[in-house]
Amino acid sequence: MAKGVLTPQAEDFPRWYQDVVARAELADNGPVRGTMVIRPYGYAIWERLQAELDARIKQAGVRNAYFPLLIPESYLRREAEHVEGFSPELAVVTHAGGKELEEPAVVRPTSETIINTYFSKWVQSYRDLPLLVNQWANVVRWELRPRLFLRTTEFLWQEGHTAHATPEDAHRFAIRILSEVYAGVMVDVMAIPVLVGRKTDRERFAGAVTSWTCEGMMGDGKALQMGTSHELGQNFARVFDTTYLTEAGRQEHVWQTSWGASTRLIGALIMAHGDDAGLRIPPRLAPVQVVVLLVRAEDGAGEAAAGLVDELRAAGHRVELDGRVDVSFGRRAIDWELKGVPVRVEIGPRDLAEGTVTLVRRDSGDKQPVAIGEVGPAVGRALTGMQEVLLAEARRHRDARTVEVGTVDEARHAVQEGFARIPWAAMGSDREAVLAQSGVTIRCLQQADGSLVTDPAAAGVVALAARAY
Amino acid sequence: MAKGVLTPQAEDFPRWYQDVVARAELADNGPVRGTMVIRPYGYAIWERLQAELDARIKQAGVRNAYFPLLIPESYLRREAEHVEGFSPELAVVTHAGGKELEEPAVVRPTSETIINTYFSKWVQSYRDLPLLVNQWANVVRWELRPRLFLRTTEFLWQEGHTAHATPEDAHRFAIRILSEVYAGVMVDVMAIPVLVGRKTDRERFAGAVTSWTCEGMMGDGKALQMGTSHELGQNFARVFDTTYLTEAGRQEHVWQTSWGASTRLIGALIMAHGDDAGLRIPPRLAPVQVVVLLVRAEDGAGEAAAGLVDELRAAGHRVELDGRVDVSFGRRAIDWELKGVPVRVEIGPRDLAEGTVTLVRRDSGDKQPVAIGEVGPAVGRALTGMQEVLLAEARRHRDARTVEVGTVDEARHAVQEGFARIPWAAMGSDREAVLAQSGVTIRCLQQADGSLVTDPAAAGVVALAARAY
Repeated sequence: MAKGVLTPQAEDFPRWYQDVVARAELADNGPVRGTMVIRPYGYAIWERLQAELDARIKQAGVRNAYFPLLIPESYLRREAEHVEGFSPELAVVTHAGGKELEEPAVVRPTSETIINTYFSKWVQSYRDLPLLVNQWANVVRWELRPRLFLRTTEFLWQEGHTAHATPEDAHRFAIRILSEVYAGVMVDVMAIPVLVGRKTDRERFAGAVTSWTCEGMMGDGKALQMGTSHELGQNFARVFDTTYLTEAGRQEHVWQTSWGASTRLIGALIMAHGDDAGLRIPPRLAPVQVVVLLVRAEDGAGEAAAGLVDELRAAGHRVELDGRVDVSFGRRAIDWELKGVPVRVEIGPRDLAEGTVTLVRRDSGDKQPVAIGEVGPAVGRALTGMQEVLLAEARRHRDARTVEVGTVDEARHAVQEGFARIPWAAMGSDREAVLAQSGVTIRCLQQADGSLVTDPAAAGVVALAARAY
Repeated sequence: MAKGVLTPQAEDFPRWYQDVVARAELADNGPVRGTMVIRPYGYAIWERLQAELDARIKQAGVRNAYFPLLIPESYLRREAEHVEGFSPELAVVTHAGGKELEEPAVVRPTSETIINTYFSKWVQSYRDLPLLVNQWANVVRWELRPRLFLRTTEFLWQEGHTAHATPEDAHRFAIRILSEVYAGVMVDVMAIPVLVGRKTDRERFAGAVTSWTCEGMMGDGKALQMGTSHELGQNFARVFDTTYLTEAGRQEHVWQTSWGASTRLIGALIMAHGDDAGLRIPPRLAPVQVVVLLVRAEDGAGEAAAGLVDELRAAGHRVELDGRVDVSFGRRAIDWELKGVPVRVEIGPRDLAEGTVTLVRRDSGDKQPVAIGEVGPAVGRALTGMQEVLLAEARRHRDARTVEVGTVDEARHAVQEGFARIPWAAMGSDREAVLAQSGVTIRCLQQADGSLVTDPAAAGVVALAARAY
């Protein structure tokens, strides 16, 4: 229906992405290089993601807090691998209050260093553990090749930071966040069948011992890292001297985790489900699940539309009324398709005279007349159905574009279409580095059956190779 | 009960404040001058404030969005009064991505300039108006005399920005936010009987035409500005060329408002209701409304406590179980008093044998035995009662410490105890400036009956003078 509004995906996928972001009014470029303005509709999606993530994070026993944006430059320098990883991306405040600062302050790229400064004060004994904290915040990492939502100089995220008494406890918690919180929201709410696995040493977070990741396949077959959970070991605890008194009376360093998911998830949503008519938002995530579109305000159609909105809201759906009858019907229909609203209910005087409305599903484009008394149940069924269909479609797409290969050359070829699964023993760090030069990376390591890898050197470990955003 | 834990208010109010912030684990000082760490309990209060404000902001038809943290320095310079007001407080990023920036970027002290850059793109015609946008964000204003929550270099807030077709519409909206959103939350949720009025020219926001404010009286009789709503006229619209096509086909500049409330509200909460035992949080605001405190886990007390928690949660209350029986009962009771939890339900084997628990109210300290089957209704009554009592107490305190005066000398004397109401005609801008040198400011102008001032020069306008935070 919306032909010509967007560049077709098959013609130019990156251009299609840009078109959707602009036309669905999700975001604009900011004036400072790589920054972005998240427009109300884009932000409404983010608020829904926040709500879903936040509820699960709290369910895991984590409490929200807030740590300062500005970090003394010296803090980042304390952990060698960490500063090396972030130095090229830092934004630095050198002047404030009309004067040059004695010590420059870094705009946080992530908060391990400042949070450990406080953990080391707050943790005294084993009774204080585990300490489970999360913050919703903005972070800044200077981007040379920015792309809205996917790579931006400033982005919004949550970053969780925890301290534990044992490495086993830290490991279990990192995995719990990865599977229950991240994969939970991504699969059950976003309808994206992410692969869960372990990062290679090359792709590990700067300062972590082990990094875990959720990787989604986008519409063009490329991978997107959607959330990561890190075991930090005692790296930061040693540097910031975060110790606790054990039950046996010894002083020991704590074992830590950190984990984050960001506004990049909006990019994943766009690219995992979008089509040539625009966004397609899974109903559980959609800020607007149903739009009631008034065709013309004649013969009681306006009243019928308002009544339907009330009825659908009372049933617990998120509903918007489009009564802009001075704008053409076609233009409005295209607009709601662009915005990916799952169900459209069209009410016009002609249908109404026959006691029906037209129900249009965004996933399939199916239109059907529905008796006005049946709209409530029909909308409920459509929302449930579309949630399932989008997940099933995404799973089929992913599986169809994933191939098993035995050599690096085969992998290099296969990733032009999607994911390549290759025995890690046939790959290894050296070949991984070579492959990376042509833009192909190992997204994660898994057991052959998709389960989590304990020892990357063990037999049967499979590497997932892909081009990635 | 908690004597000796905190400095008594009467002895040293500022010290008492610091003690409460530290002992109730609300916040810590950050490493960069004037920044703060908001600890989980402090942040839980902020989340409750956010939820209450956000619901009312959305109810007013405003949509949330997000604008960049970093603003090109030149943007701030465009509006003369605005840059003059903020220049001494700016933090400036001069280096990023390993290089010196061509143009320094300011860390936002407020977002009028960057938001107008986008409003000027988004607004075309009268159909696009009113444009109503809000963001939840951090801002940075360099503070030379920081105090946790009250004046911090970085703070969290919401800032609303709107554009309207007429000055009347902008005025009505600024007042709607002031009264329905801000005064609504402050009075009905925070139980602080704020005074609502108009700022004098001297106290006006830099770049505004008219500033409106909510002023609360703290426990020591000083005033705290708790939220402001500004009419910006066409000042920013002219500078950023934000115009719209009227229905009559003319191009006109929009009329704007901006309005904000911040983590400073937590400071207001502490100082308006706190006593020598710590915080007292109004039940509607409290992140924990009821704590069920298990005295000893014997003879089924643990099971009874858990059952009670379930029952109270099912009734819709926010409940926490304190089962830390290895910490002394007295220490735990003091801790919950410090944290200001409205109702404490103490369950011990001895009471339980008699079929009762002890219910303790934080406002009055009243303790009474309650039959275990009656706890639900008794807690409900206690929460409703405490909400009313705190508001009534604060109102009495405010009224008792407010005096009518006729001269500036009388005002200077009266503000040692609280607020002085003086005819604005007997004050005027010149005397206001002199008074300000001794730390006394005009908090707002009101009509004699407390209603809003249209014309500050009109007869009967009263100035509210006070020492302020």
